[in-house]
Order: sequence, then structure tokens, then C-alpha cells
Amino acid sequence: MAQGKLDPKSIPNDGLTTRQRRMIPITAVHTGPGKGKSTAAFGMAMRAWNQGMNIGVFQFVKSAKWKVGEEAVMRRLGGLHDDTGEGGPVEWHKMGEGWSWSRKQGTEEDHAAAAAEGWQEIKRRLENEVHDFYVLDEFTYPIKWGWIDVDDVVKTLRNRPGRQHVVMTGRDADPKLVEVADLVTEMSKIKHPMDVGRKGQKGIEW
Amino acid sequence: MAQGKLDPKSIPNDGLTTRQRRMIPITAVHTGPGKGKSTAAFGMAMRAWNQGMNIGVFQFVKSAKWKVGEEAVMRRLGGLHDDTGEGGPVEWHKMGEGWSWSRKQGTEEDHAAAAAEGWQEIKRRLENEVHDFYVLDEFTYPIKWGWIDVDDVVKTLRNRPGRQHVVMTGRDADPKLVEVADLVTEMSKIKHPMDVGRKGQKGIEW
Repeated sequence: MAQGKLDPKSIPNDGLTTRQRRMIPITAVHTGPGKGKSTAAFGMAMRAWNQGMNIGVFQFVKSAKWKVGEEAVMRRLGGLHDDTGEGGPVEWHKMGEGWSWSRKQGTEEDHAAAAAEGWQEIKRRLENEVHDFYVLDEFTYPIKWGWIDVDDVVKTLRNRPGRQHVVMTGRDADPKLVEVADLVTEMSKIKHPMDVGRKGQKGIEW
Repeated sequence: MAQGKLDPKSIPNDGLTTRQRRMIPITAVHTGPGKGKSTAAFGMAMRAWNQGMNIGVFQFVKSAKWKVGEEAVMRRLGGLHDDTGEGGPVEWHKMGEGWSWSRKQGTEEDHAAAAAEGWQEIKRRLENEVHDFYVLDEFTYPIKWGWIDVDDVVKTLRNRPGRQHVVMTGRDADPKLVEVADLVTEMSKIKHPMDVGRKGQKGIEW
């Protein structure tokens, strides 16, 4: 059953050895209207952390109140690394409170500029191989809204050096993102408690 | 944008206050052929851990080699709780190596018995409110194969006391499970690197 999931269906004629093919960095997109897009991305980051990878999380969200649970856990994991050498280091940046590398504080008016600035920083980091595993959370929205040029994203991802894994989340992923990715999962909502008037719960929804 | 996700679409006429409704435990199913079903469940468990919830993970998998990354991280989080009081306690049990509460070692022949035994233990724990948050990983398969009676599962989930959250994962969820759940997400595979002959990568796939 589960084991079968890791068997490749065919061996491609790409001139690479299995080991070389195994070394190809993952480009993943979690999209669709259902839950679990970001949660699964953070779960992947946890796993990568466990392998000692250097993790960089970039949240393209407006509110600093979002995903505080994931942030708290990832920061604790990063702290474990700093204290005991376990796992890998973790950096967590979010646009909502102004990018932490920037003096500017994000306001409602300059989200477009903040998103563009966030992408420029990620681009610099990819060029300099700063992290092993990137989570670009809610990244599809600034692309959809024209704040970040999807062609620039595609080109940067295609040409990134080394072995840097990138996972992007958000609804309505641009077809060009889907094209450049090699692992694309769509989360569909079948049933949701908010459909019947229930509110989000602490520790469950965030 | 993201904020809107937590606004209920309508207020149900169920006689409950918002606070009471908020206290209803979540029953979630992650199903479908795509990736991220378990990863999102473990991500939810991480978040619940961060709120100090007592976490119980039950993996209905054959091989002890699976999801070692998630297990390592969840065990570290449980260890953090034991050492520093942060987050909540974590128990992680898997069928692959014989359930840890059982003397019997699972062999290829008695998976059905092991699965049934696992479910009986979960049922006892639900009745005794042992955990706050349960992950029943790959739980749809023993149901599908007739090793665990879906009607018993549905009845147990419906009648469970207190405020115990349950997340179940696996393909081909029984319609009765979907019916009893209030949060059902289907993960669909759009593109997968194994389709083009790439193998699973350490830290990425497991």
C-alpha cells in the first residue's frame, strides 16, 4: 500500500542517474479552495527541519495574527537547533508586521510594494542559496493581484542554483506556477464546519 | 482575504451560543489521491500541541519506516513538554512495529487483528477522554478492507464525550466517515514528480 507510493512509474530517459534525479530540488504548489494547503507546507518544513535543512518561511499575509501556532512551533524547532544542534535553523518572516529585514512597516496602502519587496528578498536568497527549504505561504495572491510578476518567479525558480526546495501555497495558482512546479496538489473542500455556522477554534484553525 | 475564511456563512438555529458552538470538537477527514493528507493532519496536531493539548497519534501503517520525520518532530515536541512544560504531551503509536501497548508483534498475517486491536484501544481512550487531539493516520484503509467496522467508528465518534478532536487520513474514505465528519478535505494530485520517474527524497517525502 503506502510503500508503493514511492515507486516511480517509469524511468525517464534524461541521462541522469537515480541519485542525480533524487537530488533535483522539489518545486511544490498547494492550491485549491480546501483546507490544509499551508498546514501541509509547514508539515513538509518540519520534516525538512528534522533532516537538518535550513528553513526559510515567508508569509505573504496581511495580518500578523495568522498561523501563530505554526510560527510558534517552527520557532521552537529553530530554537531547539540553536540550543542543542538538533534539526536545522529556522527563519520566519511575515509581511503582515512589515518584513523583519525591512525598516518599513506594512500598512494597508503599500501591500503591493511590501509584496514586491518580499519577493526581491526571496529572489536574492535563492540566488545566494541561503536556505535549503522555502515556504512561500499565500504566495499565489500577490501574483494574482499583479504585485509580483509570475514570469520573474518562473524564471527565478527554473534558474535557481543548488538544491533548494520551494513550496508555495494559496488558492488560484497561476497556470505558469503549476507548469514550473513538479508537485502540485489541489485541496478541495468537501465539507467545512463554517458552512454550518461554526467559528474557527483556537488550536484547530490557527 | 485570509480573515474571511473564519467568518461563518450563516448562524445556525441550533440553540447554541457562539461559545458553545466553538467548543464542539472537530471531526476531520483528509482523503483523496493527492499528497498532504497526513502532513496536514500532523500540522494540525502541531498547532494543537502549541495550545497545550494532549496529542495521541495512531498510525495504521504496515511499515515502521514511514513518516519517521513527523514522528521525530512530534516526539521532540512531546519531549519539550516533558522538559519545559511547553505545549502538550505527545503519544505516538504505530501498528507497523506492533502497537506499543501490546506484546504482540504485527506480522503480515495478522494485520487485520492488529488494526482491530488498535481501534479498540482508540475507542477506550475516546471513552475515557485520554487525549484532546487524535490523529488516526491511514485509518481509512483498515475500514476499507473490513478490518474495522465503520458503523462502530461512526457511533463511537458521534457519542464521544467531552471535547476531543479527531483527524482521520487516507484515500477512499467511507461515505459514512465523510457523513460523520464536519471538516472533509480532498487532496487531488495535479502533478507529481514520481510521474516523471523521480524517486522520493529524504526530508521531502518522508
